[in-house]
Amino acid sequence: MASALDFRVTHVDGPARRGELMTAHGAVQTPAFMPVGTQGAVKAMTMRQLEDLGVEIVLANTYHLYLRPGDSRIARLGGLHRFMGWNRPILTDSGGYQVFSLAARRRVSDDGVWFRSHLDGSLHLLTPEKAVDIQAQLGSDIAMVLDECIAHPASDDEARVAMERTVRWARRGRERFQRVMESQRAPDGLLVSTPGQAQFGIVQGSIYPELREISARETVGVGFDAYAVGGLSVGEPIPLMYDIVERTAALLPANRPRYLMGTGTPGDLVECVARGIDLFDCVLPTRNARNGQLFTRQGRLNIKNAEFAEDGRPPDETCSCYTCRHFSRAYLRHLFHVGEMAGATLNTLHNLHFYLDTMRRIRDGIVFGSFETLRLEYQQTFPAEASQHG
Amino acid sequence: MASALDFRVTHVDGPARRGELMTAHGAVQTPAFMPVGTQGAVKAMTMRQLEDLGVEIVLANTYHLYLRPGDSRIARLGGLHRFMGWNRPILTDSGGYQVFSLAARRRVSDDGVWFRSHLDGSLHLLTPEKAVDIQAQLGSDIAMVLDECIAHPASDDEARVAMERTVRWARRGRERFQRVMESQRAPDGLLVSTPGQAQFGIVQGSIYPELREISARETVGVGFDAYAVGGLSVGEPIPLMYDIVERTAALLPANRPRYLMGTGTPGDLVECVARGIDLFDCVLPTRNARNGQLFTRQGRLNIKNAEFAEDGRPPDETCSCYTCRHFSRAYLRHLFHVGEMAGATLNTLHNLHFYLDTMRRIRDGIVFGSFETLRLEYQQTFPAEASQHG
Repeated sequence: MASALDFRVTHVDGPARRGELMTAHGAVQTPAFMPVGTQGAVKAMTMRQLEDLGVEIVLANTYHLYLRPGDSRIARLGGLHRFMGWNRPILTDSGGYQVFSLAARRRVSDDGVWFRSHLDGSLHLLTPEKAVDIQAQLGSDIAMVLDECIAHPASDDEARVAMERTVRWARRGRERFQRVMESQRAPDGLLVSTPGQAQFGIVQGSIYPELREISARETVGVGFDAYAVGGLSVGEPIPLMYDIVERTAALLPANRPRYLMGTGTPGDLVECVARGIDLFDCVLPTRNARNGQLFTRQGRLNIKNAEFAEDGRPPDETCSCYTCRHFSRAYLRHLFHVGEMAGATLNTLHNLHFYLDTMRRIRDGIVFGSFETLRLEYQQTFPAEASQHG
Repeated sequence: MASALDFRVTHVDGPARRGELMTAHGAVQTPAFMPVGTQGAVKAMTMRQLEDLGVEIVLANTYHLYLRPGDSRIARLGGLHRFMGWNRPILTDSGGYQVFSLAARRRVSDDGVWFRSHLDGSLHLLTPEKAVDIQAQLGSDIAMVLDECIAHPASDDEARVAMERTVRWARRGRERFQRVMESQRAPDGLLVSTPGQAQFGIVQGSIYPELREISARETVGVGFDAYAVGGLSVGEPIPLMYDIVERTAALLPANRPRYLMGTGTPGDLVECVARGIDLFDCVLPTRNARNGQLFTRQGRLNIKNAEFAEDGRPPDETCSCYTCRHFSRAYLRHLFHVGEMAGATLNTLHNLHFYLDTMRRIRDGIVFGSFETLRLEYQQTFPAEASQHG
């Protein structure tokens, strides 16, 4: 089966790559950042606001949508794009990460993961095949294979067992995916919402280079449309994370996009592009916005602080976003303090603008030879600090 | 002093009037509906969304803004328009209604109202003069005089005492307003944020026609820029409310706009325009949106209902709003159920669009002779039902 995913690298600067990814719902300029739309909506945003920001691709969480409103329901309503009113690309995760981090109880075996819903305690089984089926019904442009996510720290043995299981699941997931996509309509009445869906494999192996190497080799051997680096930004030291990213990216095919899952801070984006990553997602810009933390060219700004009570300046005087063009720190602080939803919206608009602007500057930097300068700027403005997976 | 407020009636249809109100921050086509921006933001909306909806004027609550962030702070930041990032007209209430409905404890005398903040229990005195000063510092385009708001039902005697006090307060409030506006900067260092501010008087008198008559005569005698009908939509029967509106409007100068405070349902808008009202405000479209109730041409629709779980139709198939053009009932129901803020935003966009569209249809109806037809339509679609003041 030919890859559903067209990917062209147009410029390189060391391991950093500038490219274009073509999906069933259009192009994504890479390196790209994907805002997280957990439950079929990016928190505090409308789709129009995302479009106006220039968002090209969003991530949606399979675990949440499987539980509510259900992938079959979404499929009957015409698929996730139509359901969300979003006609640009969507990537869905496999559901695995949330099962391992959010579900009430879980039991892993080679079959899959039994878990109880964090909402109503109902019992579910997620298998590599089921993860494919759910995402086929959702109809994302990019589906992720089911992997086993382990906590940090994990022993070499724990990490090896999970990595080896992830490889076995990758084979089963890929097989199921090919059968579903070739048949268009699987025997059990599965609805395939987006025929041109692509599937990414995931490299695991925790912080152990030798496990990462085996995982990369075996996963690439399965033959996915592209590959992700999973199991990072889970509490490990930042320099170690960067080191694993660098080693793992180097093991992945140069002609396929590389996706670093659940990362990161603005500094992480720049540093991991420098190590060969093309795609990112993270809840940091949206979650921190709702908590009153804004990312600016001067660093992080906590809008709650008393010092901003009569500060008539915008959050970032160099920023051209809607929030910075129209509103003061004093107003945003007021909205936060009185609990007005508009505060969450305006802060989120700003942070997503900052993240997308960072990606634009990264892409331009790679094309015009100024990427190293940008990297130094971000190292000074955003010294290494842990981001939050989600 | 000449009126700060230019008002032209261009068409009439019985007591119904089509006109234009010119304020310090631009024109308002009347009859008009003012969305409520309690704390300096219309809940779940950005200013750009309000602009895109065609909102021409918003109401802000003096009580809330006086307590947080404070009128002096807003004045130092350049006034409420600049603070909110809203360059179109703003009307502020006097703070009285919230003091009487929301403050923890209160004691009324001829001086004013002592009350305790519902936030921190701090003690405050609101007088007719103070209400003027606060609104001068906020810098709204239209300020309301302080009135005494009483509950329904009230005896004739209770209503008379409150009405007479309201008249005495009106004289003091008007005097203070003229002194502040003429001096531009009152002796005690008050900042006048909008020099061209206008001031409306308020007719009280509960459900008693004879008290309304005295109140209207005395309040008009004071000589405000325009007049409001207060003390309605507080629980009285709808037909009685309409009757009081009709009688009171007829007592007010024809060449000045008439504002019915805190009303109402879509049906109320049409019925009260038919009785001579030009301006409305109400929390109903925004509050009900957040509770999942949508106003449509077919009546009220509760998006929470299970029947909409797989309903791919928009809330109102005849509606041209952003929400109805892009999203299904199924999606809106999902957003409501999972608690996504986007649900509140999309529902609010729709309801405000419906209210503004109702006002557009009313204005066109008056101009083109189809107002009675519209009135019959609304009587059928929205049978009399109590709205909520707030």
